[in-house]
Parts: sequence; C-alpha cells; structure tokens
Amino acid sequence: MEVVVKCARCGTERRGDELRCPRCGGPFIIEPQFPYRERARENFPYIRRWISLGEGNTPLVELEGVKFKLEFLNPTGSFKDRGSATLISWLAERGVKRIAEDSSGNAGASIAAYGALAGMEVEVYVPARARGGKLRQIEAYGAKVIKVRGSREEVSRAAERSGAYYASHIWRPEFRDGIRTLAYELGKEAQGQEIYLPTSAGTLLLGVYYGFKHLLDSGVIQEMPRLIAVQTEQVRPLCAAVKGEPYAPPKRVTSVADAIVSTNPPLLPEMAEIIRRHGDCVWVKDAEIGEAWKWLAKRGLLVEPSSAAALAGMWKRGGKGIVVLTGSGLKTL
Amino acid sequence: MEVVVKCARCGTERRGDELRCPRCGGPFIIEPQFPYRERARENFPYIRRWISLGEGNTPLVELEGVKFKLEFLNPTGSFKDRGSATLISWLAERGVKRIAEDSSGNAGASIAAYGALAGMEVEVYVPARARGGKLRQIEAYGAKVIKVRGSREEVSRAAERSGAYYASHIWRPEFRDGIRTLAYELGKEAQGQEIYLPTSAGTLLLGVYYGFKHLLDSGVIQEMPRLIAVQTEQVRPLCAAVKGEPYAPPKRVTSVADAIVSTNPPLLPEMAEIIRRHGDCVWVKDAEIGEAWKWLAKRGLLVEPSSAAALAGMWKRGGKGIVVLTGSGLKTL
Ligand SMILES: [Zn+2]
Ligand SMILES: [Zn+2]
Repeated sequence: MEVVVKCARCGTERRGDELRCPRCGGPFIIEPQFPYRERARENFPYIRRWISLGEGNTPLVELEGVKFKLEFLNPTGSFKDRGSATLISWLAERGVKRIAEDSSGNAGASIAAYGALAGMEVEVYVPARARGGKLRQIEAYGAKVIKVRGSREEVSRAAERSGAYYASHIWRPEFRDGIRTLAYELGKEAQGQEIYLPTSAGTLLLGVYYGFKHLLDSGVIQEMPRLIAVQTEQVRPLCAAVKGEPYAPPKRVTSVADAIVSTNPPLLPEMAEIIRRHGDCVWVKDAEIGEAWKWLAKRGLLVEPSSAAALAGMWKRGGKGIVVLTGSGLKTL
Repeated sequence: MEVVVKCARCGTERRGDELRCPRCGGPFIIEPQFPYRERARENFPYIRRWISLGEGNTPLVELEGVKFKLEFLNPTGSFKDRGSATLISWLAERGVKRIAEDSSGNAGASIAAYGALAGMEVEVYVPARARGGKLRQIEAYGAKVIKVRGSREEVSRAAERSGAYYASHIWRPEFRDGIRTLAYELGKEAQGQEIYLPTSAGTLLLGVYYGFKHLLDSGVIQEMPRLIAVQTEQVRPLCAAVKGEPYAPPKRVTSVADAIVSTNPPLLPEMAEIIRRHGDCVWVKDAEIGEAWKWLAKRGLLVEPSSAAALAGMWKRGGKGIVVLTGSGLKTL
C-alpha cells in the first residue's frame, strides 16, 4: 500500500470510505508510505486522473522582510482548492455523481467549482442567514444552495443526511491531504521559520503539518517549522485548549473574520496536539485585523479579513516568518 | 542599448519619457535588441529592481480540448498586473512619487495596487457614472478616485493634465511591454495555434504580439501564432477597421462585457496591422457571451463577462486554440 488511511486517535485503519472511525468516532488521516517525490502529484498515488483547475504553485512574495504565500490566488480564490482537487479527483474515480458539502464560505465555493468540473451535482448546505459574495460564487458554479435553520452543527447534519455523498472538507481526509502541497512548495524555505496560519476547522493546519511531516520524514527538511495558529477573540477554541484559558463561544459570531467561525471544531484534539508540540496559538481582535488588512491593501495585497488575521497574529506575537494569505479580498468587496 | 524605444508609426526614437511621438503623435513601442532569455525578467533590462506582487506564471488548463490561460489569477485579478509590474518598476527607479491613471476597471485596480506597493500616491480618474466591484477594489488599495463628467476622452485628458505623472496603461510602452511575458509563458505551446484575446484598447494584443515576435526573431518559435481579437457587437472598432465594415459606436456602452469598452482606441492602427497580418477579428453578442460565461462557470472557471467573450468568439469562428481568460469573475459577483 502506498498510503495508509487510519484514525488519528486510535489508529484503526479505514476499510471503505467511512466518514469517522467506527471504533472511536475520530477523524481519519492519510499517511504516505514512501519518501517525498519531487513531482508534486506523485505524492498522491491514490489519484490517477486529476480534476484540476491549476491550483497550487501560488506566489511567495517578500514585503518589508515578511514572506507572504498568496494562497488567495488559487482558482476559486482560496487555499481550499488544493483540497478540493484531491477530494473531488478521488470521488470522481470512485464514480460519485452527487455530493453534499456544508460551508457558505471558501470551502463551499471550492467544492462547488471542482464538483462542477467533475460533472457532479453539488448541493451546498448553508446557515439560513448566509449571504454575500461567497454564496453568489457558490451559485455561479451551478451548485444548489440549501439553507438550513439552526446551529452550524445542524447544517452539517443536514448535509450528512442528504442522501448525496457527503464530501465534507473537514472529515474527508482526502481534502486535508491535498493541502500537503502547500508545505511542499514552502519546503526548505520554511526551515527554522514560523508559519502563520488563520485557523478555524483546522484543515489548513493539519494539511500543512502532514506535508511538513512528510518532508521531515523524508529528510528533505531537517526540522519542523513552527506552526502558529491564529484565531480571533470571538472564535479561539484552539488557543483556549492549548493555553488552558477559559473560553465561551459567542451565540453568534460577528467578527470581521468571517472565515474563522468554527467555535467547536471537530478536529480540535488533533489541532491542539500539533500546536503543543510544534508551535503556538495567538488570537487577535477585530481592530488588529483591520490594521493588518489595511497594511496589506496599501501594499497591493487585497485579502479577506480572515487572512489578514494571520499578519495581525504575527505582529501580536512579535514574531517573524511566513504568513499564509488564505482567501481573496475580491469576495468581500 | 539593450532596448530601443521608438514610434510605432514613423520610427522616431524616444528621447526622454515623452508620452507620444513629437513628430507624428504616434505611440512608442519597445524593441529588445537581444535574443530571448530563458529567465523572464532578464528580458526587461530597463528594470533593475522589480516592484512585484508575484504576477505571471498563471495556470494553463485544458478543458474539453480547449486550453485556457488563467490570467484572472494574477495578483489583482487580471492580466494587467504584468504591465503594471514593468511600468511601475520603471517609474519607481526614476523616482516618480505621484501618478495618475484613467481607468475604472482592471487597469485602474492594477496600477493602484502596484503604485501603492511602490509607495506612490495614486490618482485614478474615472467616468462620473463608474461604480461596482472594481471601483471598490481601486479604493481598497488606497488610491484616490476622481470622478470626471464627460466622455471617456475627457477622463483621459483630466488624468494627463492632473499634474501627477501620467502613468497611462495605454500610452506608456513600459506597460504593454510587460505583457510580453504572457507570450513567453505560452511559448512553443502556442505554435500553430489560434490565441483568442478579448480586445479593447489593445494592450493585451500588442503586448502578446511583441512577445511572440521576440520569440520568433530569436528562433524559439518557428511561426507566429494566429492572434484572434474578440470584440462585442457594441464595441468593435477593430473588427470594423480590419473587415471594412461600417461601425457607429453607441452613445453609451451597455454590453455585459464592461472591460471591452474602448470605442475609439488610440492604438487602432497598430492593432489593425497586427490582425491583418497575423490573425483575425470576431465580434460577439451579449447572449453569446452569457452562454460562454455559463459554460466556464459550470466548469469551475469564474471570469468576468469580457473574458468569456474570448470563448464566445472561438465558438463563433468555429476555431480552436488557446483562450486567454483575462479578468476575475469575483469582481463582478
Ligand atoms: Zn479511532
Ligand atoms: Zn512618430
């Protein structure tokens, strides 16, 4: 076997395509069983035919001593395209024709685009009050948007029980796994650096971590970069867990960082372990995000507030490193 | 001299940085005096320090037998960034601190971003009725937007007479010249192919042409690709000129293709000569653009209508080749 798919919590191997570990309910992860290969796609041996819009290979630019990875220049305007490419390619090979996803944001838009490209029917479940550019983007790709009243968890449940194949960007390991390529692209550049990552449900953090782990296990890099998760004052379950701080999620998230809204991320234990061993967590206020957003815009980088949060987090810690700019500001103009 | 800057019409060499040929009023063009160099930036010897946001190296993806060059994935969402990088870098080296540009669209946004990055004060002159995502984008980069009543020509004149350095994306050859890199990236891939280009003021057409000419003169390619300019029913001065068709520009352009609005392009003679010798011109109706836009969106490519026009043009001619998708659909959501 070129890759092993196993539970992140108890190690049970996945037998088919079950969503959660049947033994403990944990998420599955994918572990490559071969050294890193120079040609990026060969690191995903479970995909033979790629459903691709040209994702990845985004610019890394240096401004005033800080390096920015411009993930918002991916085909649908966010880093999620790396994960959609692998998940949708894998599903297409398995003959899946109709998928459901729950996200009114970048993940929903990305899954809608790649699903459309694969000729799938795409249903995107969103909270009843969702609106704005990202929702219009999801609809533009031809996906069916289904509004669900109730909590974020109820939206997820509706998608899972829809009857369509549940293509969850959080639970399906083939999604997170695609984000390994971001770590590959940073590669040696990342050694000894801090990598600042806006962190919500953890797909970016976990994906990047497993990419660097692969590089490290393969001897391509000699040490794990420090992974710095950035959250917001309102939504900081990871920081709270890691630092042992009290945290009561708000009834409703009103932060400008509307892509960092996961108050109760299902993969919190996995995220917390990575941060404890290899990094740090920092949270920022809306005013700090606004300052960082302006700093970036005044230098030609138009991102969404949630992406600017990563820079705000770097400023707050007084650190220096590589800031991942995750999503396009054109969606929130 | 590594490059010669001369009038496209009478050959007079530029002495300083005059906007138009003092002898005949024609536009200047830049001609490299050396064979094509593999490292893209070395083909621009008049720039030593690049003001860059990571423009260029956009994906080329093939869908159903047609190749698409995803220029909308440039840093500000359009191909103009290639030209802004060269023009603004050149101006920054000359110590220019305050610039004026006239465009309420992609060029305005791009110049605003790169000007901001270079630390310049940027004034963008726009028609009084301009609004929408692109205008908000221009403002987001911190540019000063100045609304001018009257015709498009009056807007240009206001920018030219503003007192700030007139950084016209149409007249300054350093802008068009930056678009050579698009031809370099297509390179051998373009040989024997038709390249479909949405065409308004001609910066894309001229830039790409001079890039291919450089490759041809250097022996990198053996023949000039066919350059197919695509215009709209309402705005088709180039098609009219090339085909000898009657054409009366509308009082006001209402086409969905709001980035192809140059009813009276100053560089029309240069554009027409290229098309007569190396290509063709085709114009499309709004309904055809709408069909092409939908076709692209249903395959995950969200572009602005003016970009979809290029595909509509290919369909109309019954041709096949490489379609340049110039601008992001996220700006017009
Ligand atoms: Zn388990
Ligand atoms: Zn002249």
